[in-house]
Amino acid sequence: MSASAAKVSRKENSNHDAGDETSEKEQQEAIEHIDEVQNEIDRLNEQASEEILKVEQKYNKLRQPFFQKRSELIAKIPNFWVTTFVNHPQVSALLGEEDEEALHYLSKVEVTEFEDIKSGYRIDFSFDENPYFENKVLSKEFNVNEGGDPVSKSTEIKWKTGKDLTKRSSQTPNKAGKKRQHEEPESFFTWFTDHSDAGADELGEVIKDDIWPNPLQYYLVGAGGAAGTGGAARQFDDGEDD
Amino acid sequence: MSASAAKVSRKENSNHDAGDETSEKEQQEAIEHIDEVQNEIDRLNEQASEEILKVEQKYNKLRQPFFQKRSELIAKIPNFWVTTFVNHPQVSALLGEEDEEALHYLSKVEVTEFEDIKSGYRIDFSFDENPYFENKVLSKEFNVNEGGDPVSKSTEIKWKTGKDLTKRSSQTPNKAGKKRQHEEPESFFTWFTDHSDAGADELGEVIKDDIWPNPLQYYLVGAGGAAGTGGAARQFDDGEDD
Repeated sequence: MSASAAKVSRKENSNHDAGDETSEKEQQEAIEHIDEVQNEIDRLNEQASEEILKVEQKYNKLRQPFFQKRSELIAKIPNFWVTTFVNHPQVSALLGEEDEEALHYLSKVEVTEFEDIKSGYRIDFSFDENPYFENKVLSKEFNVNEGGDPVSKSTEIKWKTGKDLTKRSSQTPNKAGKKRQHEEPESFFTWFTDHSDAGADELGEVIKDDIWPNPLQYYLVGAGGAAGTGGAARQFDDGEDD
Repeated sequence: MSASAAKVSRKENSNHDAGDETSEKEQQEAIEHIDEVQNEIDRLNEQASEEILKVEQKYNKLRQPFFQKRSELIAKIPNFWVTTFVNHPQVSALLGEEDEEALHYLSKVEVTEFEDIKSGYRIDFSFDENPYFENKVLSKEFNVNEGGDPVSKSTEIKWKTGKDLTKRSSQTPNKAGKKRQHEEPESFFTWFTDHSDAGADELGEVIKDDIWPNPLQYYLVGAGGAAGTGGAARQFDDGEDD
């Protein structure tokens, strides 16, 4: 519709005419000049993007030692990551009962944004020796291919016999008798084989943009009621919004 | 669900226990240290945001003379803006027949991002003397209020008698006999009275983020087939992707 509408619109010029003052030739020259000016604007936009990228890269480097230190401290807290994931509303919805069991062996999570941030990021999950799979590290990486399209790839999970959580149609209920209100989801671990939406991977982006910037806030959600860490947790719950 | 799930998850610590090595007290100290480290990370994030804002402000200033020059050139082309809007798929869908008539008097569009870009922007539409309303300029401005919530406000349109386009249930068909495939939309001008979604104003964002950065590309859409400007238009159509 746009082409014909444009045509009509142009013709209507004759109805209401500022164009009387401007000759056809002058209009064409104006269009050419607009195009030149537009090129200058585009050039400035590119420069701005590059400068912003440099700022982001600089701060990525400055944040690095703090992320490092944070990882060391998190390692001292048993089940930090599984608790964080269970407390995160979107991630929690992806967790089956056995996923949660398996994630108790998750000892470390790391998000790495690549030097050229626009080009992608990788999430590494380090696991302790566990009954589910052989891998020590499961990674998923998001990138753009040569054609500029988003792509993702992952570690192949080496499941132990009979332990492939992605091949259970319905997971067995947790022994503790806890009941979920929602239907059992597919396994969290299907995420490692799903590359269908690399440009907008929901879990990848939640981990990178929401959890990784501040996992403690999710670890501490509702912790005021939990036995044991109650005191410290409440204290930090209050301080969170600073 | 997160609160109770967190509780369960904490209790489960006793099943698989890296926690044997770490006393309750050490864990609490670790949480306190994570909180401190997190504060450092938050501080770096704020610094990064501020630096990026400065880059954006710098380039906003650098772009200004080119936008100015572009506006002067656009003023030489009759019906530049109405053609641009009609050619833009999303904006076009908002235009009734009489809206389009009225927009033939639109002589200038300007987008101003405020110094603190995060705080908002304003779009000014300048009109020639016209049969519809008295105003020379119609503006809509997007901002955040003291509570941090997005708000918008607009010029009140002083419609001439019987010309209020927002009060016509169905607009009369265009004399030129052109037929629209879709239902007649509400008037484009209702946008100036609609402040229901200031945080994500669709038309405002399309104009600011899609049209304003490069209106020429929409002006020239389909122009290859239009009488009169054919030659120059085609030429620029080809050059657009540079």
